Amino acid sequence: MTRTHLPPLEPLRQILGDRLISDAASCWIYGLDNSRLHTLPAAVALPESSQEVAAIMAHCHAHHIAVTVRGRGTATTGAAVPQANGIVISTERMAAIRAIQPENRLLIAQPGITNQVLQQAAAHHGFFWPPDPTSSAVATLGGNLATNAAGPRAVKYGTPRENTLALEAVTASGEIFRCGSATTKGVVGYDLVRLLIGSEGTLAIITEATLKLTPLPDAIATLRACYANVGAAAAAVARIMAQPAIPCALEMMDGKAIAMSRDYAGSDDLPSGTGALLMIEADGSAATLPESVTAITAAAQGDGCLEIRAAHNKAETAALWQRRKALSPALRQIAPKKINEDVVVPVAQIPALIASLEQLAQEFAITIVNFGHAGNGNLHVNLLINPDDAQQANAAALCLDRIFDRVLHLNGTLSGEHGIGSVKRQWVSREIAPVPLALMQGIKQLFDPHHILNPGKALPDPM
Amino acid sequence: MTRTHLPPLEPLRQILGDRLISDAASCWIYGLDNSRLHTLPAAVALPESSQEVAAIMAHCHAHHIAVTVRGRGTATTGAAVPQANGIVISTERMAAIRAIQPENRLLIAQPGITNQVLQQAAAHHGFFWPPDPTSSAVATLGGNLATNAAGPRAVKYGTPRENTLALEAVTASGEIFRCGSATTKGVVGYDLVRLLIGSEGTLAIITEATLKLTPLPDAIATLRACYANVGAAAAAVARIMAQPAIPCALEMMDGKAIAMSRDYAGSDDLPSGTGALLMIEADGSAATLPESVTAITAAAQGDGCLEIRAAHNKAETAALWQRRKALSPALRQIAPKKINEDVVVPVAQIPALIASLEQLAQEFAITIVNFGHAGNGNLHVNLLINPDDAQQANAAALCLDRIFDRVLHLNGTLSGEHGIGSVKRQWVSREIAPVPLALMQGIKQLFDPHHILNPGKALPDPM
Repeated sequence: MTRTHLPPLEPLRQILGDRLISDAASCWIYGLDNSRLHTLPAAVALPESSQEVAAIMAHCHAHHIAVTVRGRGTATTGAAVPQANGIVISTERMAAIRAIQPENRLLIAQPGITNQVLQQAAAHHGFFWPPDPTSSAVATLGGNLATNAAGPRAVKYGTPRENTLALEAVTASGEIFRCGSATTKGVVGYDLVRLLIGSEGTLAIITEATLKLTPLPDAIATLRACYANVGAAAAAVARIMAQPAIPCALEMMDGKAIAMSRDYAGSDDLPSGTGALLMIEADGSAATLPESVTAITAAAQGDGCLEIRAAHNKAETAALWQRRKALSPALRQIAPKKINEDVVVPVAQIPALIASLEQLAQEFAITIVNFGHAGNGNLHVNLLINPDDAQQANAAALCLDRIFDRVLHLNGTLSGEHGIGSVKRQWVSREIAPVPLALMQGIKQLFDPHHILNPGKALPDPM
Repeated sequence: MTRTHLPPLEPLRQILGDRLISDAASCWIYGLDNSRLHTLPAAVALPESSQEVAAIMAHCHAHHIAVTVRGRGTATTGAAVPQANGIVISTERMAAIRAIQPENRLLIAQPGITNQVLQQAAAHHGFFWPPDPTSSAVATLGGNLATNAAGPRAVKYGTPRENTLALEAVTASGEIFRCGSATTKGVVGYDLVRLLIGSEGTLAIITEATLKLTPLPDAIATLRACYANVGAAAAAVARIMAQPAIPCALEMMDGKAIAMSRDYAGSDDLPSGTGALLMIEADGSAATLPESVTAITAAAQGDGCLEIRAAHNKAETAALWQRRKALSPALRQIAPKKINEDVVVPVAQIPALIASLEQLAQEFAITIVNFGHAGNGNLHVNLLINPDDAQQANAAALCLDRIFDRVLHLNGTLSGEHGIGSVKRQWVSREIAPVPLALMQGIKQLFDPHHILNPGKALPDPM
């Protein structure tokens, strides 16, 4: 167990000097993440090297001090919220690019770099790193790796687990180690790289990552396809996914999401009767792209398809995306404290999930707005409630429970890219059976015997 | 420790009936793999279900009986060779396809199915599973997963770790569990799927796999590019890998390999002065493929490029591949007991590796023939020796040691897809440092406390 009273900070100050923050006012912001949960940490450490991280961990291990690592706090699950009497390690001073090797298709960076800065550096050499969560302007590489955060391009290019070659990390007891290799193939020893990715800072602290780069496409095409209902749109998603021209984004909005963005944005250029919408992007060389667009368009057509519109220039592209981009501010305006889930089901089960969600919305009298990465079956399910209203909060909790049951019944998973943090922890054992859960808890015990690394996150405590 | 005398077999007979083989003559073949090592097992079990595997493991766990799982024994490293007084579980009776879901792009199969049968079933629905080791006609899915075996298409489509969604497995103590999910995104709990893949049967027994399928391309184009030397060919590989049109195979042969296949096949249609050769395949739709071929051809051209020839029909394709296909029988004829390594270096380091190999070949007076999956930096390094000649065997051991040192110095890894088995175990601790090695050994201890799962393979024993 971790400490119940203030830890000894002096040795940390000897390591970090004025890069150890311990006044409450300055620490305050480091107690938050995008879940709106907050716990004030005892101190915030701003290390500048792997060696400093190792020295911090050696001290925290010896004194059973809880450590929560954070990038920029964009987690939606409480994953970046520290423990009382624990410390925060912020990676903000470890944001360097160590190397870019175009001929080896790799980039080596520290965890505090933002996804966007990373992409700019890669783009300079004609490459990109596929994971691109919506928060990429502020979200850090370390946070992307901690939650396996992927974004829309995952449908074609995969998640961080498919795009990371090697890691340097620091153990709970303060030892620096490397795993994986700088090559795209390798089978020496067990795969610790993928084990650390998605573990939400509970197994080790990632201090450097070797990322697999992909060449930038020459051109991108954008399509908007309108359907009479979600069932027709979901059937189109399945048809698109069953042919070889894979889109680099395949996003869906349901009828509620369309209505909401229409009310917010004012304009309406959709055919009447539109009950669901797909935003589709394809990429490739200028010469091959038209053929891909033709193939995707053919697959997008079918029963219930009302219109498919292609953008022919930047202005038209922006116009097509306008509705999707209006969605987030619209939702924030209507329900600033909405619950945003990111469940996943196999693509063919999207219609069944949407039907269940419509039924549950009625049963619990909660407006539910659905949109997300349909090509991966990854839906952002938004419950528009005010959690400060006890009755609404209660109904939402019961409704959420039924949603998760339904997702698991449809052979899905509770989180595609947000992770578990503290807020979804109570449902983990509904998805993961006792035998694999005990193996995961055993791995946690092995990597972090004092349970100081981000306690209370990702996995339920052992029974 | 596992047993030093014959284990109690009667309970296994009660589970399996005549599917427990215990006469030495019938067991003999199950003691071999393609490393030519051999140990006679005490018995061979032919389970037909996960439940039977679980019952076998419960018994073996209770009695500390070593268990080596095998598919068809194509491992080159001794990974499928059992322990004396241990048993073999052969997956040959667990070879069913459980489901194919084109709309979800997945296929569920048991481990005993061969890669080829799996591909045929997927092709029937317009899909394929990217991993395609050269041994695909006989190698099983279970073996592919155990060693993360990939083959030439990995350069575009990745290895089993990038193409497997979920697993069912049986623990060392005989409990059935599932990990991963049927979806292409998911971040609930730690990634046990990738931990089991590549673990060579030392952590759990895979009894079912949910595989991510990829749509079959409409068309494939084949190119052969000839270069004055390996340096020029390797530079072309780096240029090809730095542009967006990714080949689906990018294979290299060095001058020795070319000479060998020329002597064997007789014919010679290469430009004079050819010192290295690339076999390149690209795939796509019939409409987009010519553009990809143009881009790849442009990248393949450059200093030292003597000729690029494209196949225009099946006969020409076969003619271009003839030299590469002649290589294996040629090598077998010349050195039936050759040592075949599968080291990997970053693509840009291929010339440095080849230069070192030429130097070592001279120093140790050993003919070394190099070919392999250049797009991944994965070279099959063949030492043409007769291990029955003590002097040659001794020189080869010293040479191999130097080769591995050089590979690690070039930031590479000891195995791309063959794995470690027993034959490369002594070198693992040269690649993996004490801290991560101790974590891996801790994982082994957690998953298999009696060390009965494929003992003596993959990792060195704990100190």
